[in-house]
Amino acid sequence: MRKIHVIGIGAGDPAQVTAQAVEALNDTDVFFAMDKGEAKSDLVELRRQICARFIADPGYRFVELADPPRERSDDADGYRRAVTDWHEARARVWAAAIESELPDGGVGAFLAWGDPSLYDSTLRILDRVAARTDIDYDVIPGVTAIQTLTARHRIPLNDLGEPVLITTGRQLREHGLRGAAVVMLDAECSFLRCPPDTRIWWGAYLGTPHELLADGTVGADGERIATLRAEARARHGWIMDTYLLRPSV
Amino acid sequence: MRKIHVIGIGAGDPAQVTAQAVEALNDTDVFFAMDKGEAKSDLVELRRQICARFIADPGYRFVELADPPRERSDDADGYRRAVTDWHEARARVWAAAIESELPDGGVGAFLAWGDPSLYDSTLRILDRVAARTDIDYDVIPGVTAIQTLTARHRIPLNDLGEPVLITTGRQLREHGLRGAAVVMLDAECSFLRCPPDTRIWWGAYLGTPHELLADGTVGADGERIATLRAEARARHGWIMDTYLLRPSV
Ligand SMILES: C[S@@+](CC[C@H](N)C(=O)[O-])C[C@H]1O[C@@H](n2cnc3c(N)ncnc32)[C@H](O)[C@@H]1O
Ligand SMILES: C[S@@+](CC[C@H](N)C(=O)[O-])C[C@H]1O[C@@H](n2cnc3c(N)ncnc32)[C@H](O)[C@@H]1O
Repeated sequence: MRKIHVIGIGAGDPAQVTAQAVEALNDTDVFFAMDKGEAKSDLVELRRQICARFIADPGYRFVELADPPRERSDDADGYRRAVTDWHEARARVWAAAIESELPDGGVGAFLAWGDPSLYDSTLRILDRVAARTDIDYDVIPGVTAIQTLTARHRIPLNDLGEPVLITTGRQLREHGLRGAAVVMLDAECSFLRCPPDTRIWWGAYLGTPHELLADGTVGADGERIATLRAEARARHGWIMDTYLLRPSV
Repeated sequence: MRKIHVIGIGAGDPAQVTAQAVEALNDTDVFFAMDKGEAKSDLVELRRQICARFIADPGYRFVELADPPRERSDDADGYRRAVTDWHEARARVWAAAIESELPDGGVGAFLAWGDPSLYDSTLRILDRVAARTDIDYDVIPGVTAIQTLTARHRIPLNDLGEPVLITTGRQLREHGLRGAAVVMLDAECSFLRCPPDTRIWWGAYLGTPHELLADGTVGADGERIATLRAEARARHGWIMDTYLLRPSV
């Protein structure tokens, strides 16, 4: 039996790591990493920083997992099928790596950005890995980009007793804004299509030295935010941003 | 000028405290607490445990803030007005306490359950405090009950690329279930009114020694969960529970 920790490491600032995560990091022999192919070297660097800063005994190893190619598809059904196939292919690679790199009784870990439950495929894939090889895994929750966004703006997420939708850029474009919403995974500044009096609290590279914050209304500040975003993305070669929208009342 | 930290302490397990929170805890001279009147002594105890465990130099003090009475109201407008009045009354009490208990240049803190942005009034009240007296405050994000729920069940929060609504028991009763939703602040097992094939992942006292987990469908497992909840509430004198619902596909 092998043990696997799925560890939420927070959304950008190494100091967001929890005491529980530190314990799990120190318990780990092998860190499995799947950043290969991604150009986000700042993110890979952050993971190394976290390990270097919080692990007392540096007897751990990193193992890179080759990433099977992913088919692209435009319609929603094709997209879901492509992703499922890709999860299955990853599960095969992960199961093989766990068996070959981790001795029986050994402890492996996957580091998940923010919290492992939020727009992250690690748990879906591990569920498939568990069907292939004998692993016992647990999940260490982390601070999400949503909590980091509201903390940096010092704002509540919800209006008094009101709901908030967590959604994606694609969903926002397809369904419009029907109440307060936090938008993630948006490469297209989809907020620009919302009514001009929609309020926005935006943040990029939250918790990192590149952090950017802006707020206002879509009408008055949307274009400025889009420009800020484009310039930062060009400068750093990558961007992660998220925002809270509230329809005007 | 006085400095105030609003510190998210996680949703039940002291080990959810982040490195950032530990730093802010150690920076604090006076902890302002507003648990008066609440019978949740386990929660007060958790805060003391966190301070005792993570603060190196025990030179800090706790100051209890008297809680102004809150008017009850049944209609939504009256409710909002009552809450606003109550926030204003609290802001008055807090501003006075900060001025009298904290020397100029001193550092105070409020400990918020989970994350300070989620169904918590601390930030709304501090915003009003800042209008009355000169404070500079920052927010340290924390792990929420939502992340704790999904971690303990080892499940993703969202379906692939799909949105999730964060909502309350009251909202669920008023509007029904229209997609995946995490329900908080529900004293009435409102999930029982959802269609029988609705899937539920439920958790109470998450991260604490009393933790309870259950999952299944509302039809097959709803009554069992309601009974579990009622028994636990009777046994401990209080309960905090939350759950993820997914309409059947
Ligand atoms: C694949 S999802 C992972 C989310 C992560 N599991 C979490 O809990 O925050 C990546 C998206 O999260 C948001 N995000 C994550 N980290 C961020 C950061 N430091 N600043 C701004 N947005 C961030 C962006 O919307 C990005 O597109
Ligand atoms: C006033 S809200 C505060 C939420 C908190 N700020 C957070 O980030 O989780 C309290 C609600 O959160 C949920 N909750 C908080 N802690 C919990 C725990 N340890 N177990 C289960 N539910 C919890 C319950 O739904 C409860 O009614």
